[in-house]
Amino acid sequence: MKLALIGVGLIGGSLAAAWRAAGTVTSVSGFDIDVADAVTDAELVVLAAPVGRMAALLTDVAAAVPVTAVITDVGSTKSDVIAAAHAALGTGSSFGRFVPGHPIAGRERPGVEHADAKLFTGKLVILTPTEQTHPEAVATIERAWSAAGARVELMDAAEHDRVFAAVSHLPHLLSFALMAAIAAAPDGELKFGFAGAGFRDFTRIAASSPVMWRDISLANRGALGAELRTYRALLEQLQAAIDNGDAATLERVFEVASRARRRHGKTFDAA
Amino acid sequence: MKLALIGVGLIGGSLAAAWRAAGTVTSVSGFDIDVADAVTDAELVVLAAPVGRMAALLTDVAAAVPVTAVITDVGSTKSDVIAAAHAALGTGSSFGRFVPGHPIAGRERPGVEHADAKLFTGKLVILTPTEQTHPEAVATIERAWSAAGARVELMDAAEHDRVFAAVSHLPHLLSFALMAAIAAAPDGELKFGFAGAGFRDFTRIAASSPVMWRDISLANRGALGAELRTYRALLEQLQAAIDNGDAATLERVFEVASRARRRHGKTFDAA
Repeated sequence: MKLALIGVGLIGGSLAAAWRAAGTVTSVSGFDIDVADAVTDAELVVLAAPVGRMAALLTDVAAAVPVTAVITDVGSTKSDVIAAAHAALGTGSSFGRFVPGHPIAGRERPGVEHADAKLFTGKLVILTPTEQTHPEAVATIERAWSAAGARVELMDAAEHDRVFAAVSHLPHLLSFALMAAIAAAPDGELKFGFAGAGFRDFTRIAASSPVMWRDISLANRGALGAELRTYRALLEQLQAAIDNGDAATLERVFEVASRARRRHGKTFDAA
Repeated sequence: MKLALIGVGLIGGSLAAAWRAAGTVTSVSGFDIDVADAVTDAELVVLAAPVGRMAALLTDVAAAVPVTAVITDVGSTKSDVIAAAHAALGTGSSFGRFVPGHPIAGRERPGVEHADAKLFTGKLVILTPTEQTHPEAVATIERAWSAAGARVELMDAAEHDRVFAAVSHLPHLLSFALMAAIAAAPDGELKFGFAGAGFRDFTRIAASSPVMWRDISLANRGALGAELRTYRALLEQLQAAIDNGDAATLERVFEVASRARRRHGKTFDAA
């Protein structure tokens, strides 16, 4: 297949390398000049750009892509990308060939210079087709990801966004917030000087890209906002328990948490 | 020296092993029968029990300890232990021989069966003497920790409690809260199934002992309550930014956090 790769970073570069190795794609055009040139004779278009840029890129793609091409993306949020695809591609056959996707893979270091054809080997890719998505377009994207070594699961877009708001977007926000709160304190540098292994692990994700996470937070604001509200209600209970010396509430919440973490520890370690 | 070890778990067991290896202690009495028997001819008393039990143990120690003995503890919080020592030992010479301490060392697995004479090698021990603490008692405890391989730093007790509320107690509470919030959600098991490496690291400390952390949270309720309040105010700002689509606030907070985490990353890794 002729691939148009819109966004050549770690994910896009790794995917192109994996598909070249597998013989899935015969030619790759990036968009050094403009998006229209890149997609004009493409059979497969992959949007491997940050979620904050998807809407504008989809508009450019829509203006020039062949009606027969299958389009997919690798964004961390799905409802917003689907809405942008709706707006750019209409609700007809073009939109039916757009297959929303999210590979659960990455590296701490971004950029095409860290691209790796094995990045997706054994990793999960979630596709969130809508009722209008053509089954044959989904099958094409499933085969393509399998060729890159990934496992594919289908999921509802809203459910996807709720799940990742809880297990990815909210922890990033909480970790950023702890680093920012201590950095803003008058004795912040002293505090950082006594941080240990637990703090190190808790804040590892706070080294992530501020711009990327700003965009993800806004792209998934509905689900993330709801998860944050639930979490803040629990913190309010814990604040009251601390202020009032309510040992029973603290122990009950910590116990539920500790039991769940021990039960799921091996699953998390395997991820 | 004749050591009375009150609490024979990972910390106490490791310390006794380190001091035996260094020749610092000649005899060790635990308190299998009662505290009074253990301390009755001790030169050094180490309270290596959870912070929730310190007050009761200090009362028992006070009733039987020789007036010449030096007493120390290994609790994670200091202002509350000092208050308990005041209450048990009075404000005179006995209290002057109590040296509050906190070794920054531990293992994921508690219990004397995991004790290790090298547990404190190169690790930091913070002592928080008060104005009434005798300098020679502080010197005795400094020498003893050095013999066990540790580095010693002196700090004000209130400052110690603020620092560890921020870099240890609050992250534990936040990590417990995230696991508990997801565990309580109707789709919690589904969510846990998609947790990745970031979530795994963020929640590692949520596997800790609920009872121990209940006690630490209450023992340090003043400082932890204040840190939690500051943190919650920041989350309220982030909630408003998400709800209102305020990209600038999100980017500003994430940027401060990311820069601080990158700047301190190597220090944290070395801890």
